[in-house]
Amino acid sequence: MIKVVLLGAGNVAFYLANVLTMSKNINFIQRYSRNIKNDKYFDKNIPKTNNINNLSKADIYIIAINDDAISSFSKQLFFKDGLVVHTSGSMPIEALKCKAKKGVLYPLQTFSINHKVEYHQIPICIETENKKDKELLHLFANCISKNVYEINSSKREKLHIAAVFANNFSNYMFKLANDICDKNSIPFDILKPLIKETANKIQKISPIKAQTGPAKRNDNKVIENHLSQLSENQKEIYNLVSKSIINTYN
Amino acid sequence: MIKVVLLGAGNVAFYLANVLTMSKNINFIQRYSRNIKNDKYFDKNIPKTNNINNLSKADIYIIAINDDAISSFSKQLFFKDGLVVHTSGSMPIEALKCKAKKGVLYPLQTFSINHKVEYHQIPICIETENKKDKELLHLFANCISKNVYEINSSKREKLHIAAVFANNFSNYMFKLANDICDKNSIPFDILKPLIKETANKIQKISPIKAQTGPAKRNDNKVIENHLSQLSENQKEIYNLVSKSIINTYN
Repeated sequence: MIKVVLLGAGNVAFYLANVLTMSKNINFIQRYSRNIKNDKYFDKNIPKTNNINNLSKADIYIIAINDDAISSFSKQLFFKDGLVVHTSGSMPIEALKCKAKKGVLYPLQTFSINHKVEYHQIPICIETENKKDKELLHLFANCISKNVYEINSSKREKLHIAAVFANNFSNYMFKLANDICDKNSIPFDILKPLIKETANKIQKISPIKAQTGPAKRNDNKVIENHLSQLSENQKEIYNLVSKSIINTYN
Repeated sequence: MIKVVLLGAGNVAFYLANVLTMSKNINFIQRYSRNIKNDKYFDKNIPKTNNINNLSKADIYIIAINDDAISSFSKQLFFKDGLVVHTSGSMPIEALKCKAKKGVLYPLQTFSINHKVEYHQIPICIETENKKDKELLHLFANCISKNVYEINSSKREKLHIAAVFANNFSNYMFKLANDICDKNSIPFDILKPLIKETANKIQKISPIKAQTGPAKRNDNKVIENHLSQLSENQKEIYNLVSKSIINTYN
């Protein structure tokens, strides 16, 4: 049994708390949060402390807090035993300033406390300072996910940028589509099957092959017509992305 | 039984051929294609003609061909009985130049002959010139989809623009993410569950609420760091979309 302490109470911590509780090979012995925020969402059976000096002895300590706070927070961890990991996609392993061994356990998914996801499908990217820690972290990661990847800090940073495009920016494209629907009294629901299929399609076909639309066809008549109907901000984005698609395919 | 003739042999025609064959209340009596392209994909049991003057008598004729060809093609249909519909999102009902009654049957989905979709979930947007034709087209559309909407030409044009953002542009964000992965020897597979969840999330939560990421948090340190690692084209898109997200949320 791998003994685990979880530090944090946000969306990532909530997902981890759920998956730790579910796993038979993990002993989720304690969680830490400095305040009572989100306490109602967490399992009451897991002992909780708000005192950083009262942490139980564990094999792995998982810090799931805001990127900016990782360094200063980890400085307060004076113990030397165990492996301390953060869960950030954009911070290097060196962001950890604790005395103990360091690692990263980055779950690549978008989390909300209100929306459940298929936990065991979530890719986990791991990194450690040495081979022995890697074995432990790999063992642990395999308990919570079917998709475990070894990714170092430099690659993880690139992966995080790719995730901004794949998740944040595509969601913003959905948002712009929603705006156009709202403005024209069209139910956004009409677009939902299309959006689902757009994501499903690239599970099997590469995005470069899945591309369709007026820009792919270099259909300037349709593009000009669309541009004439958009607001300034929409027009700027439509124009730039279309030009980029045209350059890619023609 | 509604008698239907299908004209065209592309992705949309292929989807329609499948769904027409499956429906018990539809008599799919003939298909037309000027050449033998894609013939291997279509059901051999459906009579086919390549002579526009040999079309069978039907209740509904569905033209599923390229937008640009709809007007000139429909001019060749000299019969006066039956309802002729096109399947384009961006063309008005007036694009049809036939003698018979006119309508539109726009299935809002991204189609590939190689990739199957849940046919009955696909939203169908219909439009006709008069009430009687609308009843027939509604009856027909209900046979092939659970999601039928009455959308006039002006709204359909806006919907098509929204679909460009929701489908074409979001797919292009996946493509840019794929490029970054390839360049850094990261398997694109790591991002696939994230992409699936991005689309699943907005089936229940609006995109404006689902938004996350550095631009949403107005985190300039992360944004500047990301920008410094991108190619010129990626940088331009990252910059413009981030600015737009920042303006939306701050």
